[in-house]
Amino acid sequence: MPIHDSYSQQFINHLDAFNTSEEPLSLYAPISYILEIGGKRLRPILTLMAADAYGKNAETALPAALAIEVFHNFTLLHDDIMDAAPLRRGQATVHHKWDVNTGILSGDAMLILAYQQLDHYEGSLFKSLTTLLSKTALEVCEGQQYDMDFEKQSAVNTTAYLQMIQLKTAVLVGCALKMGALVGGADPVQADNMYTFGVDLGIAFQIQDDILDAFGDPKTFGKQVGGDILQNKKTILYHQAMALGTEKQQTALEKWFQSKPEETTQKIEAVKALFQETAALEKSTALVKAYTETAFEKLHNSGLGAPEQQLFQQFGKQLMGRTL
Amino acid sequence: MPIHDSYSQQFINHLDAFNTSEEPLSLYAPISYILEIGGKRLRPILTLMAADAYGKNAETALPAALAIEVFHNFTLLHDDIMDAAPLRRGQATVHHKWDVNTGILSGDAMLILAYQQLDHYEGSLFKSLTTLLSKTALEVCEGQQYDMDFEKQSAVNTTAYLQMIQLKTAVLVGCALKMGALVGGADPVQADNMYTFGVDLGIAFQIQDDILDAFGDPKTFGKQVGGDILQNKKTILYHQAMALGTEKQQTALEKWFQSKPEETTQKIEAVKALFQETAALEKSTALVKAYTETAFEKLHNSGLGAPEQQLFQQFGKQLMGRTL
Repeated sequence: MPIHDSYSQQFINHLDAFNTSEEPLSLYAPISYILEIGGKRLRPILTLMAADAYGKNAETALPAALAIEVFHNFTLLHDDIMDAAPLRRGQATVHHKWDVNTGILSGDAMLILAYQQLDHYEGSLFKSLTTLLSKTALEVCEGQQYDMDFEKQSAVNTTAYLQMIQLKTAVLVGCALKMGALVGGADPVQADNMYTFGVDLGIAFQIQDDILDAFGDPKTFGKQVGGDILQNKKTILYHQAMALGTEKQQTALEKWFQSKPEETTQKIEAVKALFQETAALEKSTALVKAYTETAFEKLHNSGLGAPEQQLFQQFGKQLMGRTL
Repeated sequence: MPIHDSYSQQFINHLDAFNTSEEPLSLYAPISYILEIGGKRLRPILTLMAADAYGKNAETALPAALAIEVFHNFTLLHDDIMDAAPLRRGQATVHHKWDVNTGILSGDAMLILAYQQLDHYEGSLFKSLTTLLSKTALEVCEGQQYDMDFEKQSAVNTTAYLQMIQLKTAVLVGCALKMGALVGGADPVQADNMYTFGVDLGIAFQIQDDILDAFGDPKTFGKQVGGDILQNKKTILYHQAMALGTEKQQTALEKWFQSKPEETTQKIEAVKALFQETAALEKSTALVKAYTETAFEKLHNSGLGAPEQQLFQQFGKQLMGRTL
């Protein structure tokens, strides 16, 4: 049993209690719906783990954990509208099950509900958490905007692309950990180290996710392998291949990314071959390793004892150990 | 010169300083755009007036006033998407000038920026303001949802309709005043009286707005007179007419509200005649008067001196004195 199963259960119980059916139902039902679709609840688990590690009962961090999860699902809801995605985790997206207007407004309400969870805290802790949520939330919006902007560009340099990942995905992992640390009573420096641990782990996780989408084992990877390639999604592999490849390889890759063939296997295999031949796969895998290591180093300055540091390392390794 | 011109100028200067061009421009340019389109800035002016009335320099309330105005414009931005409105105050709406995705994401960022303005405050004041913003913001979402739900119904009773107006429009006026009062140092009871003063004034204002849209003087009313009627918008006049009219009048009104004639004058005149014959106009005008009077009564428990109370009365009268 993974180390974090009890946190997960504790969080899900709290989430269930939150999911009441308030009026107007047309506003709140979609919110319960997306929150119940599920997911791994990694971020709120990290919040509870951190509070516990710093010596407070994980229960005190439940409102912060819920704020993070509700905020995360708000971004999924609005992103799905922007991506015109019909499915989320195999279920109809909110704007598909209801309509776009419902998706917009229920999403707005979720962003507010995320903030409102923090009302459970007082004084300077309330201020720190709320300020952190605002900063993080704004960065996530910026990341989403860069992601959309980058999709329109044929090549983006790796630094800019990593910065986008950091904003869109990783800062929220950092925020989840920092909130837990703050609730747990960590001092500002310790909390900041947990933040950067989370950010680096988040970047590693996102790159790993992009790699698995193309090279993952269909048996263990939750989604369709090659899905990003078929959607012409410009992940780190694409941008690395464009940066590292010969002119011929670049042209071939661009051509595949403009095609929408009926027969999909050939495209997936050809693009994967290009990712390998240009060493984009190798480089990206090295990035995962480097970011994971940097992340773990941050734990040394977290002020946590060795056993607690190990718990977070274990969590990180489980996360990164998903098989190619 | 209206009493509040100096507050208005002070606020606009503060808003101009806020409107910097940050990266990514594709996210922030639409925000500056909608904030610059203008409007009467009534809500932030009320915030500054309240802080001043309770004895603090209006300057200390500028961040709260900005939070209110940014939040208000966030709601306009997202509402315009939901209404598929091409124009706002004679200018292209954000989703029209850019696209829907930009409108959604820039709106999201504005909601966060509204919260972030409150970071300027500390301690229990920060907590009170942030909690109030969350509560109000959620109510505004509920009001918008009821408004959309009601548009699909042929008749809505007046109590439910007034409740919708309260949530969608009036609580933000109350919030603007209460924030100013809190920043100004009002005690909780005084601040709550300013809140209900604002809510009642806000309801009166919205009903008055609906009346003016149909019966206003084309010379002084900013928008096209009869615009709501041509858009088949179910305002208080419509719902009152449906509640008060004979079966024949109800049927006639419903028929007009299902039509989209080329020749618009006849429709406008026919519907206005129905509003008058059913006494919907008379009843609605009486509601404006009643809510305005109740609002002014709240000022007696505001803890403000007579001259300060008079300033708010004057402001309210100016607002309500817009001519039929």
